[in-house]
Amino acid sequence: MNSIRLAQQLQFILEIDRLKGVLRRSLLLENHRRENSAEHSWHLAIMAMVLAEHADEPANLLHTLKLVLIHDIVEIDAGDTYAYDTEGHDGKAERERTAANRIFGLLPADQASEMIELWEEFESQQTPEARFALALDRLMPLLHNYHSGGITWQENQVTVSQVKERMSPVSLCSEALGQAVTAVVEQAIASGLLPHAWSEQ
Amino acid sequence: MNSIRLAQQLQFILEIDRLKGVLRRSLLLENHRRENSAEHSWHLAIMAMVLAEHADEPANLLHTLKLVLIHDIVEIDAGDTYAYDTEGHDGKAERERTAANRIFGLLPADQASEMIELWEEFESQQTPEARFALALDRLMPLLHNYHSGGITWQENQVTVSQVKERMSPVSLCSEALGQAVTAVVEQAIASGLLPHAWSEQ
Repeated sequence: MNSIRLAQQLQFILEIDRLKGVLRRSLLLENHRRENSAEHSWHLAIMAMVLAEHADEPANLLHTLKLVLIHDIVEIDAGDTYAYDTEGHDGKAERERTAANRIFGLLPADQASEMIELWEEFESQQTPEARFALALDRLMPLLHNYHSGGITWQENQVTVSQVKERMSPVSLCSEALGQAVTAVVEQAIASGLLPHAWSEQ
Repeated sequence: MNSIRLAQQLQFILEIDRLKGVLRRSLLLENHRRENSAEHSWHLAIMAMVLAEHADEPANLLHTLKLVLIHDIVEIDAGDTYAYDTEGHDGKAERERTAANRIFGLLPADQASEMIELWEEFESQQTPEARFALALDRLMPLLHNYHSGGITWQENQVTVSQVKERMSPVSLCSEALGQAVTAVVEQAIASGLLPHAWSEQ
């Protein structure tokens, strides 16, 4: 056994425990606490297993799982940036690049390279797997928001057009999932959870 | 699109959000809150990616990922049973079987069968992937306990021999990981975190 290699791997495994402390805006369905990025990543992985058949371009499942499992690890250093926070996106790419190099850099060099390449692949959206992974990453917050009463939409005064724009990667990847998104958005509008515009306070 | 099929899949995806509310005994390294079973499953999946090379019998990575991602879903109904709680294990198998049938049964029949088979495979430990998945499931709580100061060992008066017994699937699956376990247990004993016996109060 190469004990230095294993020690590096275990150091990485301990370090990523911190992703469980990175809070997203989405609220859990049952008790409405904020979701963390580790449990979110698990949820996307199960979604990939269950919904793979709906990707219009076939996506390799193992590859998709790797992408969704690691895509948020950079948030340990760079934080979660809320989807509709335009200011928060300033410098996001650079913060995340630095984070990827530090965190994945804890691994042995070959594994660090593989992880950084996976993260870059998710970010650059040039493969069927990356597009399917992003579609899942957009779909789940819609389901969370709708089924938890639209609380985070209201808190952040999110409008129909913002949500539709945010959901565009879903229909791009899958006609069936795109139709499901349209149905949920229409129900959210009909229920008054998601307005076309927020009246000024 | 078969909209009934997709509706069943989405219902399952919403239902498993509840795994994020199932608390384990392990404490997170950073703030010592109790870990939930969803984020734990994510952690095992990353461990599978990083540590696969140490499985002495080659384990297919996709298959291992499926096993670790779904192995705890039954806890939504059946609850998490603490490793060293002998009473809690009474009726556990039956509770979990009922849970598997209900929760995976939300899926279309072909996917429900696949998920139940994966869960059974993890439980029955007859394949290299199931043995590797269990090794990871045993290794991580040891790392959590040791690196969070042995708090849960102390709270539950866990002894060296109990931990060694609990860790036996790790060395069975991987000589290298077994050696890592031995090193951590020795350090835990040397640091006074894990005694051979607890003195009576």
